[in-house]
Amino acid sequence: MRILWRHCQIATMEAGKYNLIPHAAMITDGPRIVWLGEAGTQSDDAIDREVDLHGRLVTPGLIDCHTHSVFGGDRSQEFEMRLSGESYAEIAAAGGGIISTVNATRNASQQQLLESARKRIHALRKDGVTTLEIKSGYGLSFADEGKMLQVIRALGAEMPLTIFSTCLAAHALPGEYQGRADEYIDEICQRWLPAWHAQGLVDAVDAFCEHLAFSPQQVERVFHKAQQLGLPVKLHAEQLSLLHGAGLAARYNALSADHLEYLCEEDIALMAQHSTTAVLLPGAFYFLRESQQPPVALLRQHQVPMAISSDLNPGTSPVLSLRLMMNMACTLFRLTPEEALAGVTCHAARALGISDRCGTLQAGKEASFVAWDITHPAELSYWLGGTLSKQVIYQGEEVWHD
Amino acid sequence: MRILWRHCQIATMEAGKYNLIPHAAMITDGPRIVWLGEAGTQSDDAIDREVDLHGRLVTPGLIDCHTHSVFGGDRSQEFEMRLSGESYAEIAAAGGGIISTVNATRNASQQQLLESARKRIHALRKDGVTTLEIKSGYGLSFADEGKMLQVIRALGAEMPLTIFSTCLAAHALPGEYQGRADEYIDEICQRWLPAWHAQGLVDAVDAFCEHLAFSPQQVERVFHKAQQLGLPVKLHAEQLSLLHGAGLAARYNALSADHLEYLCEEDIALMAQHSTTAVLLPGAFYFLRESQQPPVALLRQHQVPMAISSDLNPGTSPVLSLRLMMNMACTLFRLTPEEALAGVTCHAARALGISDRCGTLQAGKEASFVAWDITHPAELSYWLGGTLSKQVIYQGEEVWHD
Ligand SMILES: [Zn+2]
Ligand SMILES: [Zn+2]
Repeated sequence: MRILWRHCQIATMEAGKYNLIPHAAMITDGPRIVWLGEAGTQSDDAIDREVDLHGRLVTPGLIDCHTHSVFGGDRSQEFEMRLSGESYAEIAAAGGGIISTVNATRNASQQQLLESARKRIHALRKDGVTTLEIKSGYGLSFADEGKMLQVIRALGAEMPLTIFSTCLAAHALPGEYQGRADEYIDEICQRWLPAWHAQGLVDAVDAFCEHLAFSPQQVERVFHKAQQLGLPVKLHAEQLSLLHGAGLAARYNALSADHLEYLCEEDIALMAQHSTTAVLLPGAFYFLRESQQPPVALLRQHQVPMAISSDLNPGTSPVLSLRLMMNMACTLFRLTPEEALAGVTCHAARALGISDRCGTLQAGKEASFVAWDITHPAELSYWLGGTLSKQVIYQGEEVWHD
Repeated sequence: MRILWRHCQIATMEAGKYNLIPHAAMITDGPRIVWLGEAGTQSDDAIDREVDLHGRLVTPGLIDCHTHSVFGGDRSQEFEMRLSGESYAEIAAAGGGIISTVNATRNASQQQLLESARKRIHALRKDGVTTLEIKSGYGLSFADEGKMLQVIRALGAEMPLTIFSTCLAAHALPGEYQGRADEYIDEICQRWLPAWHAQGLVDAVDAFCEHLAFSPQQVERVFHKAQQLGLPVKLHAEQLSLLHGAGLAARYNALSADHLEYLCEEDIALMAQHSTTAVLLPGAFYFLRESQQPPVALLRQHQVPMAISSDLNPGTSPVLSLRLMMNMACTLFRLTPEEALAGVTCHAARALGISDRCGTLQAGKEASFVAWDITHPAELSYWLGGTLSKQVIYQGEEVWHD
């Protein structure tokens, strides 16, 4: 089915720039773009259907490249307790913190995890997301991490968007392994990862490199195993302190290093050298009321592409809108609206290793795009909250409009 | 038409508290609530229809009590220029700042203003708003302020929510009156306000008390005239400096004083004494990257009710979600989720002088409510961005669901 999408503006986002075509049209054939350009210059041969986009502004479908969308429970009660003045000790005694999410995830059935995640992903979809990464990391046992990975695959099979599955078993040390972190890492490397990889459950491998999680040495063992299995890696790095995880990740040709508030220039140079994308997560920065800014000027200087993501998770970033993260990237981190849009399209695709397929609008790429009821692409970062009216097209088919 | 709404939880928000009824039901008769309470304890007489709310959590319809939703143009280009490193002088030379909104509003037809505002109000409605205040203040001439007030009335007539109209002619000094601020105030008091009041265009009178706008003496003249006309007053006060505008407003029994970052305890005591509500606007605080916090602890101590609003405006708060303001009130100003919900229901009703009609769910009040697909009311403040699934009922009729 060849469709002519006419009467629109298009921001192609090639090379991370708007590249705005003011009077544009696009032809798709099934799930692919076959042509786009100046309206009226297309060949009208063999068009099966025409769709009038009423002058809307078309961007690539948004890509949320770092989320923890699958989890049991939520932490709204903990949020309320903290704001009501209860101490960390009182909250911990009431079962708060990441351990509460691990317990709730372990206690939840696959069906329960699927249903609660579906609602959150639906919120992201309503805001223009057509590609989503989801990490495991709240199971922390062979059975429960495996359950999460299966739920991620099930969501990808049932929902009209592309879902990438990242194994984050090295997210936190479970209570059973207290004082035996190296043994936990051994288990992941020797038993768990090979098994999940064999079942086709893993697209990439991630870890949390921080004093309260795992050391660079432990992370390196996970990366080494991933490399043996032929799986790409990514890393939660430099969020709360400088451990040089980002440089380590770059040396393993990581797709991305994420958070990066404490990132140093030496590691930025390594990221540039190894084509590792910087993923900025302003939602967690805002929610935790952090003050240390990621080194945006240095990232620009070294031409390290910056992606932006929701980090959707119950403890530090309960974010349901990627477009809000664009505003926060501008307001809090001083990115330009063009950088923010590149961060959720072109550069987010790099952070998932799928630049050949999506993230920009070009002939041959995936026909996943959003037609927004706005005049200028800067409005995507400017309007704060809510949802802008839009049509969301996923692989050539309209999957949402409001 | 008597409707039984069953199978829900209800947070009534009486006296600003959740007052949660876990297994609840409600009976409405046309636009009014006639009964609510424990499920199964109602009399089933003369019920025309039953609606199953599937266990959803019901709150009063949200009230956005301070907005500038009607304006020409937008300032996304200026937002982009500023983030791209252009100086204030360059932006001003390119026609930026409030003057650009005044020019665009003056140049827009009533129809254009109506259509652009309708989209923004639709975004607020999708997020649960059933009552909205809108201010004039970008016309700054008799003809153009009148045009704005007429657009506000037209929006109220066509859209399924209640709209309050506030005259804010004393928002900024128009270029024509440069150096003649007192003459401008004279015009407003002697000619404009009486004429608009006679046409039924004004529900309340507001002004902007700040060094860059009008002095307390000038504001007092506007308040004096409003009092003569029997119109309630409100004030933009203490946003950027302490001019004791909030105390002045309280002495005129103002419905509210708004912004209040620099508010002092003496004026808080006056607000308490005169039942003036404090309206906090975290969107502008966030967007302008301010650091001076409103004195929340003192407002609590003096029992001054705190409302929360979007301040929707193109220059300093392009906010399309009141629920996001609840999160920002918690995250940035450390309100509790219960205070945040009271701030957009019970206390926002006080800030508009309509506590007798709405803002809480009780027999005799307006049947305007939202049935949210959540478990606990704290989730309304906790989830960041996006829109939660919900049904919105306005005066007894469902006007939105997603
Ligand atoms: Zn994360
Ligand atoms: Zn205002």
